[in-house]
Amino acid sequence: MAVYELERKIDLTAHSTVSHLPTSLDGLFEPIMQRAVAEIGETSPLLEQIAAYHMGWRNADLSPIAGDPPNPGKRIRPRLAMLVTAALGADPAMAAPVAAAIELLHNFTLVHDDIQDQSHLRRHRPTVWSLWGEAQAINAGDALFASSHLALYELADREETAALLPQLVKAFDKTTLAIVGGQTMDIENEGDASVTVERYIATIAGKTSAIVEFSAWAGGLVGGATEQQSAELARFGLSTGLAFQIRDDLLGIWGTEAETGKTPADDIRRGKQTLPLIELRRLATPHERRELEAWLTTAEDTDASVRAILGLLSDYDMRAQVEQQIRFYHNAASAALGQVIPRDSSTAAHQLYALLDGLEHRSG
Amino acid sequence: MAVYELERKIDLTAHSTVSHLPTSLDGLFEPIMQRAVAEIGETSPLLEQIAAYHMGWRNADLSPIAGDPPNPGKRIRPRLAMLVTAALGADPAMAAPVAAAIELLHNFTLVHDDIQDQSHLRRHRPTVWSLWGEAQAINAGDALFASSHLALYELADREETAALLPQLVKAFDKTTLAIVGGQTMDIENEGDASVTVERYIATIAGKTSAIVEFSAWAGGLVGGATEQQSAELARFGLSTGLAFQIRDDLLGIWGTEAETGKTPADDIRRGKQTLPLIELRRLATPHERRELEAWLTTAEDTDASVRAILGLLSDYDMRAQVEQQIRFYHNAASAALGQVIPRDSSTAAHQLYALLDGLEHRSG
Repeated sequence: MAVYELERKIDLTAHSTVSHLPTSLDGLFEPIMQRAVAEIGETSPLLEQIAAYHMGWRNADLSPIAGDPPNPGKRIRPRLAMLVTAALGADPAMAAPVAAAIELLHNFTLVHDDIQDQSHLRRHRPTVWSLWGEAQAINAGDALFASSHLALYELADREETAALLPQLVKAFDKTTLAIVGGQTMDIENEGDASVTVERYIATIAGKTSAIVEFSAWAGGLVGGATEQQSAELARFGLSTGLAFQIRDDLLGIWGTEAETGKTPADDIRRGKQTLPLIELRRLATPHERRELEAWLTTAEDTDASVRAILGLLSDYDMRAQVEQQIRFYHNAASAALGQVIPRDSSTAAHQLYALLDGLEHRSG
Repeated sequence: MAVYELERKIDLTAHSTVSHLPTSLDGLFEPIMQRAVAEIGETSPLLEQIAAYHMGWRNADLSPIAGDPPNPGKRIRPRLAMLVTAALGADPAMAAPVAAAIELLHNFTLVHDDIQDQSHLRRHRPTVWSLWGEAQAINAGDALFASSHLALYELADREETAALLPQLVKAFDKTTLAIVGGQTMDIENEGDASVTVERYIATIAGKTSAIVEFSAWAGGLVGGATEQQSAELARFGLSTGLAFQIRDDLLGIWGTEAETGKTPADDIRRGKQTLPLIELRRLATPHERRELEAWLTTAEDTDASVRAILGLLSDYDMRAQVEQQIRFYHNAASAALGQVIPRDSSTAAHQLYALLDGLEHRSG
């Protein structure tokens, strides 16, 4: 019966690109997110409205947006959690509180990241701090984090999931510590030419992968996965997250403005320690490394420095090497997932692999 | 038996000042806080160390401090929660996860407040952002907030409190939304001469009182309070918090540097909308109000402006009027508490009233 319901709920016309994922699952967790964010308004209506702006539910003048948000984000993480639950043969609605909590948690980290990175745009709209100042943006992030918990606690309202609450909430906050810890390492890494590939992987395993790992694991738990299946699902999530971040690094250097909404080679201009640069340092000759550090730290003629760095990256065929890394982690993700959920074993399984395949080749 | 245990645990020599409260209760929740903060180090050791610095467990060079923290804060909130549990005849150790969570939550808000206020000192030590920058301070606050949840979830480890988890976690995050909402209002209020007493009370009811309200209410719930008793305990906490903040406002204007660790009249210099100023605006003549706004916004000779404002406050006997407000809320707190826990009904009750009395007359 759960499987039957699932067949009805999932859009069969969806195919393998991120933008064409079924949106019918969203209808299950969206109301939970809205309830949780509405709680913010109990004390400060302004704070709720700022949070709603960030979620894509209000305009910059705080007027409500009717209908679908203009740019709600890719919602990969909550969809992944619900598809895992569904592919295990359970009702995906059971995972809706987890999905809502994950998406709110992700959005809290974005609001704080944008302050930390001093980013002016997010999803093609001005960032919260750039509109309401850093102090209120800190509050908006804190409020979204608190409200993510309120979403998660809705697990207690349903008999089948109430018993899972203690285990899931604990993992949820440990996941947050991994995200914030990874973010801390990322800030520590800035301008540090000695960052190794190992350090880089540890950083992104926290910053980016921990929440994907949690999404897959929690979706499994709700869906009744065994302990061994849960471990495989966590591995699947971890590898998916690593591939996702390395793809982000690739796009941060070679992505076009149309693809990323950012200046080309933006990560080089910002001096970020991303995989292409770390690998380049490892392979370059001592002379080239000295040149590279000089270009990275130059204050004059940034465009010429960026061109020189892109040239050196090209000499070492770095884009192809990084593509290979992404493929490696995607294969690992696919293999781990295959241990639990065979490809095409159900409509949900089909959707889940479609999501994974879409991520591997995404260009934005 | 619970009461007997209590008699042993509470230091009978304690008397009615905040600094002489029994510290034996602290031994019950301190290990939970330490476990929760240790979890931060799983991903980033640096982040754990920064959090531990803020908690008073490490020096600014991040070396550990052996023995008692130099300045752990007053710990009023967690003690209040545990004393309520104990005064209801239950084992205060049952409330230890709540107490630890409250103290970590409070500390998370302090780390973020210090960024927002650009405060350089907290408990006579440099603030986190002033030592490690705003980006890492945002992370440290976020990590303390996540770890406060991990402390709270320890309720699930004990049979008597496991069933209370869903109710307590929900109230905990709603409390956080009230705190952050109040903080948002406080920032909105800055430089706004039209802030009314009602708006001021709503602001501090969130910013300062919500956590005291939660402390008393949650201590009651763990101690087996009836619904009616819980409502009275919440009222007790709310009034205690309001009195606490108004006392803070008083000290922010008339406190000496030795008492507050800040410049005298610091709140006037920072243009804060505190009760003495809001009341003064309401009572002053139109001419005096115009003078007041000119003094508050002047860029030149701040000392002369501060002296003029202090003079006007004195004309209206504002310190005595504010003292009267504090007494009003303390009496309300005492009356609400009396509905549930009669004065001197037990050692814990005695300690609880001693804490309340100590707060009423505190000078720092």
